[in-house]
Amino acid sequence: MSGAIEPNLEMAASLFEALSRATRRGRGIVRDSYGAGEQAAHDIARAAASTAGLEVSVDAIGNLFMTLPGEDRAAPRIIVGSHLDSVPQGGNYDGAAGVVAGLCVLAALRRAGIVPAYDLAVMAIRAEESAWFDIAYLGSGGAFGLLDPNCLSIARSDNGQSLGLTLQERGFDPRPIRERRRLMDPAQIRAYLELHIEQGPTLVGEGLPAAVVSGIRGCKRFRNARCIGEYAHSGAVSRRYRHDAVAATVAFLHHMESIWRQCEEAGEDLVLTAGELYTDPAMHGPSKIAGETRFVLDIRSLADATMETVAAEARAAAARIAAAYRVQIDLGATSDSPAAVLDRRLRAQLLELLEQPFEMPSGAGHDAAVFAKVGVPSAMIFVRNHNGSHNPDEAMSLEDFAIGARALLGLLLNFPL
Amino acid sequence: MSGAIEPNLEMAASLFEALSRATRRGRGIVRDSYGAGEQAAHDIARAAASTAGLEVSVDAIGNLFMTLPGEDRAAPRIIVGSHLDSVPQGGNYDGAAGVVAGLCVLAALRRAGIVPAYDLAVMAIRAEESAWFDIAYLGSGGAFGLLDPNCLSIARSDNGQSLGLTLQERGFDPRPIRERRRLMDPAQIRAYLELHIEQGPTLVGEGLPAAVVSGIRGCKRFRNARCIGEYAHSGAVSRRYRHDAVAATVAFLHHMESIWRQCEEAGEDLVLTAGELYTDPAMHGPSKIAGETRFVLDIRSLADATMETVAAEARAAAARIAAAYRVQIDLGATSDSPAAVLDRRLRAQLLELLEQPFEMPSGAGHDAAVFAKVGVPSAMIFVRNHNGSHNPDEAMSLEDFAIGARALLGLLLNFPL
Repeated sequence: MSGAIEPNLEMAASLFEALSRATRRGRGIVRDSYGAGEQAAHDIARAAASTAGLEVSVDAIGNLFMTLPGEDRAAPRIIVGSHLDSVPQGGNYDGAAGVVAGLCVLAALRRAGIVPAYDLAVMAIRAEESAWFDIAYLGSGGAFGLLDPNCLSIARSDNGQSLGLTLQERGFDPRPIRERRRLMDPAQIRAYLELHIEQGPTLVGEGLPAAVVSGIRGCKRFRNARCIGEYAHSGAVSRRYRHDAVAATVAFLHHMESIWRQCEEAGEDLVLTAGELYTDPAMHGPSKIAGETRFVLDIRSLADATMETVAAEARAAAARIAAAYRVQIDLGATSDSPAAVLDRRLRAQLLELLEQPFEMPSGAGHDAAVFAKVGVPSAMIFVRNHNGSHNPDEAMSLEDFAIGARALLGLLLNFPL
Repeated sequence: MSGAIEPNLEMAASLFEALSRATRRGRGIVRDSYGAGEQAAHDIARAAASTAGLEVSVDAIGNLFMTLPGEDRAAPRIIVGSHLDSVPQGGNYDGAAGVVAGLCVLAALRRAGIVPAYDLAVMAIRAEESAWFDIAYLGSGGAFGLLDPNCLSIARSDNGQSLGLTLQERGFDPRPIRERRRLMDPAQIRAYLELHIEQGPTLVGEGLPAAVVSGIRGCKRFRNARCIGEYAHSGAVSRRYRHDAVAATVAFLHHMESIWRQCEEAGEDLVLTAGELYTDPAMHGPSKIAGETRFVLDIRSLADATMETVAAEARAAAARIAAAYRVQIDLGATSDSPAAVLDRRLRAQLLELLEQPFEMPSGAGHDAAVFAKVGVPSAMIFVRNHNGSHNPDEAMSLEDFAIGARALLGLLLNFPL
């Protein structure tokens, strides 16, 4: 049966083109979470779904559902999902590929006249990226009532407007988040399936178009770390009298890299990144010792215990190094996403649907982790992508996308086992 | 004779107050080189000199001379000088203290009716700081025809306007710089004397109000260093595939600190500073590996050979570390100021004029280094100053200033030996 039906790749190409046109700002893509860019992407997806004959609905916090109705509307459904927001100056495929895959698969089923036994829904999930509100998985976490209500007062990183106010201005309702009220019952979801571009170089290196994801690394992030020293003339203060924020920060980050090497040698899964690091442009100078730095330390692992250990070592090292350099290092609180285990049976089925079966961990977090956390059997497909993600140079071919979308379609057609 | 005459401290207090009032912007002082802030300071000094009965003149590139005429106007003169510009958000005393000291000493001599054997001139020197035009000693270097004419095309760091155009807009003449033509003959300068606040914590630590400067550290600065890697998702790229600009920069700067420690252990004079260090705010993100950093590496020593050796090691280390981290590290060119030796006889005379004789090196560069370079016997007095310099918290007491100014006055009255 699956041989007869193909994902609607013309629709996919046209959607990618429309998304790029509507949300490119300079070189990169800007689909700001709960902002104009994300909304433009939702509008494009919604219009395409309506044209394809899918049912359309939006939940209280803005998640968009595009459904191919099944025979039993009350039976647990399958959700195919991903997010439509992007980091600032991101690429066109991170997130969007999963929504487009779901749409071009359901559109093909609809066109073929297939009525599934239960609903199949594409969920365009809101605000997966933490770049805008300093919290990840707002849409999926909010749908399951998992968010800390305090998140409503988080300010958007660029314009400072709170999440709560932003939701209201977009016509959404912050009350379910405030009341920790879930909008979906996990028991009513048969499975969650997500196609996503690979965000690292592995599939390019392996020469493979797609992979099944074995698990999702969690993230423990010191988002607002800073080091406070004392500004002084660069030539006039000897080393022992300095309170040099850059020297202390460099010593700290270099130490953390040595911890990473030790974990690698011990066979532990870990990645460590300081992706933002800066002295204060209003105060620094070429002939000044820096009195302040700000930085981010991002810790990720497939094992929650590894993240705990590394974060504890970061705190201990910060205290030691601050004392040695006569500065303060304040790492601040972490924002945490636990590692997620994906469904063993779904993974096995997807592997059988790939011509060149390959399984690999996901280094980045995904909404699938939230579905897995609440007990929904979840699985992910990675599609080969050049130049990484979270940057304007993401590059996925439509051929590779088609291989991932075919596996998704195959899984839906063979469901349930 | 010196017992009878005191520096005019009322005039000094009033000048410091007027300078602070005219050039404070927010917390700090902004006397931008060849800009409105520096000009305001020149106007204040010039008006005070006229009121005190000193002769006033300005050279082609804006240096201001305030002269107590001597009996023999053609005889070599003594210049008491310092600069009136400041770094962005600097303090009120760095530079200005030396000009004010000269003025309140010459005003006192004039009021006492003393006519010296030869001219005594206060020189308010232009543009000593490199913060605005990425080159130090513009005023003194230009007066001696020492500047590379290419400096006229250097853009101001904030508004991008070239030095040549800036000079013209202020009514000054860039031609002497273009022609490497000197405006002063070193043989016509008997001595150069400069009072300056100490820019480090030594005199505070020693509990002393003033010191004689033994020598001036030179500076070799990589002003526009940068590291180019590749932006990527922080979770999805393992260490061996990364092109992480922050990790490479951290490794480089940490290595340079170890070089500093080695030099210290070998007894070599050296200070090393990275006072500016930043990822690109338009491109970086908490979940991105950084694809670029920019930084400054400032190398200072009393020994030119030490600076050469350390700069060569920096270049070698940058190449090694760039290869290891799969990035490019481009340190760029250095801007150089050689170390300067101060006059042994003048230092000895000044030491005798201090109640608590103390001698120390200067870690920062000063115009005195330029005068010493062209063969003018030069000397410097440091005055105790809290909280370092190049920041809004500079704090020099008028009592300490008076001790330095008295030594300056004493030297002028006892000259020549």
